[in-house]
Amino acid sequence: MSWTMARRAERLNPSTIREILKITERPGIISLAGGLPSADSFPVAAMAEATARVLRDTPREALQYAASEGYAPLRAWVAAQMQLQGLQVDADQVLITTGSQQGLDLVGKVLIDPGSTVAVESPTYLGALQAFNPYEADFVAVEGDDEGPLPAGLDAARDARFLYLLPNFQNPSGRCLSADRRLALADKALAIGLPVVEDNPYGDLWFDAPPPPPISARLGAQAVYLGSFSKVLAPGLRLGYVVAPKLLYPKLLQAKQAADLHTPGFNQRVVHEVIKDGFLDRHVPTIRARYQAQRDAMRAALDAHMPAGCRWNVPVGGMFFWVTLPPQLDATALLPLAVEAGMAYVPGAPFFADSGGHANTLRLSFVTVPPAQIATGVAALAGVLRRALA
Amino acid sequence: MSWTMARRAERLNPSTIREILKITERPGIISLAGGLPSADSFPVAAMAEATARVLRDTPREALQYAASEGYAPLRAWVAAQMQLQGLQVDADQVLITTGSQQGLDLVGKVLIDPGSTVAVESPTYLGALQAFNPYEADFVAVEGDDEGPLPAGLDAARDARFLYLLPNFQNPSGRCLSADRRLALADKALAIGLPVVEDNPYGDLWFDAPPPPPISARLGAQAVYLGSFSKVLAPGLRLGYVVAPKLLYPKLLQAKQAADLHTPGFNQRVVHEVIKDGFLDRHVPTIRARYQAQRDAMRAALDAHMPAGCRWNVPVGGMFFWVTLPPQLDATALLPLAVEAGMAYVPGAPFFADSGGHANTLRLSFVTVPPAQIATGVAALAGVLRRALA
Repeated sequence: MSWTMARRAERLNPSTIREILKITERPGIISLAGGLPSADSFPVAAMAEATARVLRDTPREALQYAASEGYAPLRAWVAAQMQLQGLQVDADQVLITTGSQQGLDLVGKVLIDPGSTVAVESPTYLGALQAFNPYEADFVAVEGDDEGPLPAGLDAARDARFLYLLPNFQNPSGRCLSADRRLALADKALAIGLPVVEDNPYGDLWFDAPPPPPISARLGAQAVYLGSFSKVLAPGLRLGYVVAPKLLYPKLLQAKQAADLHTPGFNQRVVHEVIKDGFLDRHVPTIRARYQAQRDAMRAALDAHMPAGCRWNVPVGGMFFWVTLPPQLDATALLPLAVEAGMAYVPGAPFFADSGGHANTLRLSFVTVPPAQIATGVAALAGVLRRALA
Repeated sequence: MSWTMARRAERLNPSTIREILKITERPGIISLAGGLPSADSFPVAAMAEATARVLRDTPREALQYAASEGYAPLRAWVAAQMQLQGLQVDADQVLITTGSQQGLDLVGKVLIDPGSTVAVESPTYLGALQAFNPYEADFVAVEGDDEGPLPAGLDAARDARFLYLLPNFQNPSGRCLSADRRLALADKALAIGLPVVEDNPYGDLWFDAPPPPPISARLGAQAVYLGSFSKVLAPGLRLGYVVAPKLLYPKLLQAKQAADLHTPGFNQRVVHEVIKDGFLDRHVPTIRARYQAQRDAMRAALDAHMPAGCRWNVPVGGMFFWVTLPPQLDATALLPLAVEAGMAYVPGAPFFADSGGHANTLRLSFVTVPPAQIATGVAALAGVLRRALA
């Protein structure tokens, strides 16, 4: 028996978050850890109607092999949405993916050579690091401030294959880039010829006002844009999309063919059937209202319970609070105590490409459990922190 | 604008078959090209009942994020099936994938370094070449005879990362390895420490007798086994699985997480709901009977129409005839004439890892269209060949 693994396999490691999720699936644990959308928001009745219609009207097409590009009406729907956001794209540039995570994998496959550089925010989305890592990227964390990456910070990324950016209600920081910062970053990227991969899973989850237009709208063919149906419909369908410049599209498509031939046609047709007549215009506001109330509950609980020396943002959309603890606390070390106290969070350290430091940060999701449990969970966390500080 | 592609992107190329499929989707063309299962075989009523039940009984679980390993009851079902086939495996070794194609991609990602060798049959499954190619494998085609790869041929593959083998009703050759050949190959692989990746999408589609046991049953921890629900239920669900030794499983799982987090939980639960009570024991025999009748129709049409000098196998299961034309004919060059004559096939050359020669081979699928169209399509092909020979 002589299996020899590829060198890149050394870069594949257990997902911290998914390992934590397993622990927190124990009954009785209030999980503020995973970014699981509220199951109360899933449009079950609409899904049931749509699946019945698809299996009644087009069963042979829905259950057969299908085009790697995706279901044409769904691609057209995505292109129309992009145009509303100011992107000059047509349906031929839309590639339907098996969740937005697959878009990250395909981007990595097509663009990252071993030892090439990828520029990321600090912190950045852990799933992107995991997708890019096996292609043996070197990461450069772009210097930033409270409003996001600094345009001048891109100078250190001149040689990068691309800048990976999550401008709306970022996972994990909750940060939303201002319109000015977007423009400044886009102009700097254009000036130095730095391509941008813009990831936008949370953009529709705004509370008081929509976020500024995507940075891709200004970058044109210098941007790849990733979107998802996971947060506005349901993640268990695994449906996302990549919008790519015509130069890159054929290679992304071929990588997609090699990866899984195509995203389940059944799922694509069901989702198109659900959304084609404006369903999301009615449905997404209900998710926003739910999450805003839960954001308010978490904010109130943090204000009420957290010990002095802890800081956090107040997100204006999305799913996450980002908490900075007093510097002597280590969120990874404290997690077992939190679980013992009946709650769970995600330590912040794995979200940083530069692995040193950041031990005193953690991410709290306010979307998975309802307000009363949020309050109980935050109070339990605060208790753990107080005892650790004592 | 300065996109730089990864070196591996040079190895990503348009899928010959999928490009042909696009041409052959024109109305009026009888396609014997793609390996599309007969849509008449899709269990639409069972699917409709199962989706309704899943969305009624467990909508929150079916639509939520789920474990990367797959839905536990489906993994247990797969393990039980494997045990019936003589594999000593448990459910912990089963990884549910987004179609069997994803299993090939994950295997490539974890096992292939640039410049490392992968041993393949000659011809071999084109989708496997496409999955392994971006990881920059060098291929070695194992010497074989009419019964498949020769054990002595494995000597040339001693340094390979693995041997990729499709023993049952191979795509494209239709060939089924005998029990003796399997044992001889397994013993040779064990003797020289050559791991085997066994792909079995077609094994259930036997006509007169089931194929011999999987080669993995003898190889134990020296084998990875890939299976699929595409040919026994429906390909549009994109549901397959990898059964891996415990040494490899964690890396394949982490590659899976990075690739798409998990296969749609909705699809996994629907399929489990369909199959859990022995549905396949009743359903698959109807597919076998259908395909056997269509195999007979194609065999009769080939016997009746094909010009002298053409040879073909008679498959005892699966989906394909493999036709060798007189040496002066080039199947790729003749394809446009065949399409003009109203039919389509897949040229054989792309199925060979050593790209020289083999221009006078082609693959015919007998599963997509019913017997009358098979007869018309083969007659049209024969007419094209006769004119080319004249």
